[in-house]
Amino acid sequence: MQNFEFCNPTKIIFGEGTIPRIGEETKKYAKKVLLVYGKSSIKNNGIYDQVVTSLQKADIAFVEFPGVKSNPVLTHLREGIALAKSEAVGAVLAVGGGSVLDESKAICIGAKDDGDVWDFFLGKRDAQDALPLLTVLTLAATGSEMNCGGVITNEELKQKFNVNSPYIFPKTSILDPTTTCTVPADYTAYGAVDAISHIIEGYFTTSDKWLPIQDRYVEGLIHSIMESMNIIHENPSDYQGRATLMWAATLALNGLPIAGIGPCGFPNHAIEHSLSAFYDIAHGAGLAIVIPGWMTHNSQKNPAKFAQFAQRVFDVADQGSPVATAAKGIEALKAWFKKIGCPVTLSDADIPETDIEKLADNATMLATKWGLTAYTKEEIAKVLNCCK
Amino acid sequence: MQNFEFCNPTKIIFGEGTIPRIGEETKKYAKKVLLVYGKSSIKNNGIYDQVVTSLQKADIAFVEFPGVKSNPVLTHLREGIALAKSEAVGAVLAVGGGSVLDESKAICIGAKDDGDVWDFFLGKRDAQDALPLLTVLTLAATGSEMNCGGVITNEELKQKFNVNSPYIFPKTSILDPTTTCTVPADYTAYGAVDAISHIIEGYFTTSDKWLPIQDRYVEGLIHSIMESMNIIHENPSDYQGRATLMWAATLALNGLPIAGIGPCGFPNHAIEHSLSAFYDIAHGAGLAIVIPGWMTHNSQKNPAKFAQFAQRVFDVADQGSPVATAAKGIEALKAWFKKIGCPVTLSDADIPETDIEKLADNATMLATKWGLTAYTKEEIAKVLNCCK
Repeated sequence: MQNFEFCNPTKIIFGEGTIPRIGEETKKYAKKVLLVYGKSSIKNNGIYDQVVTSLQKADIAFVEFPGVKSNPVLTHLREGIALAKSEAVGAVLAVGGGSVLDESKAICIGAKDDGDVWDFFLGKRDAQDALPLLTVLTLAATGSEMNCGGVITNEELKQKFNVNSPYIFPKTSILDPTTTCTVPADYTAYGAVDAISHIIEGYFTTSDKWLPIQDRYVEGLIHSIMESMNIIHENPSDYQGRATLMWAATLALNGLPIAGIGPCGFPNHAIEHSLSAFYDIAHGAGLAIVIPGWMTHNSQKNPAKFAQFAQRVFDVADQGSPVATAAKGIEALKAWFKKIGCPVTLSDADIPETDIEKLADNATMLATKWGLTAYTKEEIAKVLNCCK
Repeated sequence: MQNFEFCNPTKIIFGEGTIPRIGEETKKYAKKVLLVYGKSSIKNNGIYDQVVTSLQKADIAFVEFPGVKSNPVLTHLREGIALAKSEAVGAVLAVGGGSVLDESKAICIGAKDDGDVWDFFLGKRDAQDALPLLTVLTLAATGSEMNCGGVITNEELKQKFNVNSPYIFPKTSILDPTTTCTVPADYTAYGAVDAISHIIEGYFTTSDKWLPIQDRYVEGLIHSIMESMNIIHENPSDYQGRATLMWAATLALNGLPIAGIGPCGFPNHAIEHSLSAFYDIAHGAGLAIVIPGWMTHNSQKNPAKFAQFAQRVFDVADQGSPVATAAKGIEALKAWFKKIGCPVTLSDADIPETDIEKLADNATMLATKWGLTAYTKEEIAKVLNCCK
């Protein structure tokens, strides 16, 4: 284990029927909030009404800021910051999935800053303050509800970059699994893939050879995500399945799985971000394409951990060599992604092979930003060629 | 999964060489602190010097309050509260194991209150405030470094009771595994047993039948504790073994393993506290005696979870019935406790069988306080009779 710091102050309120508590929680921080959400889905399924009723009961004024897109964009973010400033809100309340939460985090930072918010994404400056953020989560996927990161796409520059700051841990996140029962099958599956992706990045890229706590934690979460996703696949409104998937997705990216594993990278994310920057593809769908290819490419170089994954997660029997054992595990993961309804090749998502060079070129921007020095354009193209 | 709330704001700084950071961390909260510790061991192994040097560099004044005992006692706690008040310290810095941390937590509460501190242990009142607490941990065992509970013994009344309050989460805990390399073999083993006890209480007493996340989390931690303890048993100064045991013990009682499992009890602790209230026996040693007996008694009634434990933790093959499979697991755990040097029966600790009635009588006090209604004197005596 390597030296580390860990601190995650977010308060989680989890379970059916917990949304009416958002008013009292918000009241601890502000009397007027910016209410951020996406499209009309939260109005159709009653979540909007529950939130508004709770705010009203707690005597909290709110200004609405709808219209956050999947893969939220910089132009809309700038509008949100301007509104938060002009309305002088004291906090931001995000109601939605990871996109709504991520854009809300950036609004929280931008509202307390006079410069260009994109500076924080470029790493030019670190946030010095932020509005308090509260969230009501409606999708099990990104883990944004219990971490201090967010991703925004600069649509002009085709840059999908992240910001991290201890100031943007949500103060309180309400996780009611029933809100996810109406999420369509494809987006539920993409969320499960996203959650898995968050834990396997560190698991496979750490150079530490003995991490019994962290490895088992990750393997246990993957088992739990797969079991619950399988249940949901059969019965979309199964509460226990939805609850397990939701909590597992939160735990997958709250800092604990990587605590003590030392330096690690997010290469699958660096590569996937280029897919969803160019095509209208969900992040989780892109990951389902990239991950098996990335694993295939990397298991040749460092097969031991991939073989452990195959054996512990998919009960693969020893195939005589770590490479062969690893291959069986990758095959099983890819088959499972396919089974739950995800694309698993570039062609599944109608991405032409001839775009690989363009994608690889774009992905190097993020790889460079994240310090993934081994991920040259050539290396990324090799990975993408395993995704055909 | 059941509804739950989870919030743990403690900042962990983990790893070799991190103690010199205590000054800067403390400075965030106070200019003058009460420095609480136990006996002279921290002076002999250089920890005291590292802490004092760091405080001096950060320009922090300190008042020393040594003399905390294992199983810390109310009379000494009262002295600490009086000293914290008379010296008007702004924070408490605990340097030691769980006993030092627990007494320090109670000092933090008592120093901000004008009434009798024992009221909080009796549940007569809830704390309304507390001094900030910082800790430098020197023993992997209780998990006190990342939770909001503490245990104190009222030596006059032979009551070993706990207090819980969100105000006593440590602000920062520094965990340097090298501080534990000089812990004697027996106390290292008792710490490992204590950590295991913290996770199996919830695991076995929840009534929820499907908890894939929490079950695997617990089973993974037990594996990690056993693997690291086995390494330390062979080589007491193995850094990776010490680091893994230390972090696992922290994670075992930070609230996460029980998040979502619904109502659960700590019956093994309720019973053990009576052992260490009457005899000069370490908490972990008492648990090594109580746990196998408690498991034997309870596995008859509810064998499925005990069989799962046997199969997943000890790779026990199916013995034809859950009760038989469970029995093999209990046998394996007891053998492992013995192997690492713990007493596993009352007679191993020179506790006469004739004292069972007295112990059972005492344990009912805590069982009643904790709402363990099934734990009558007769029931506790039955458990203790399985510990012979």
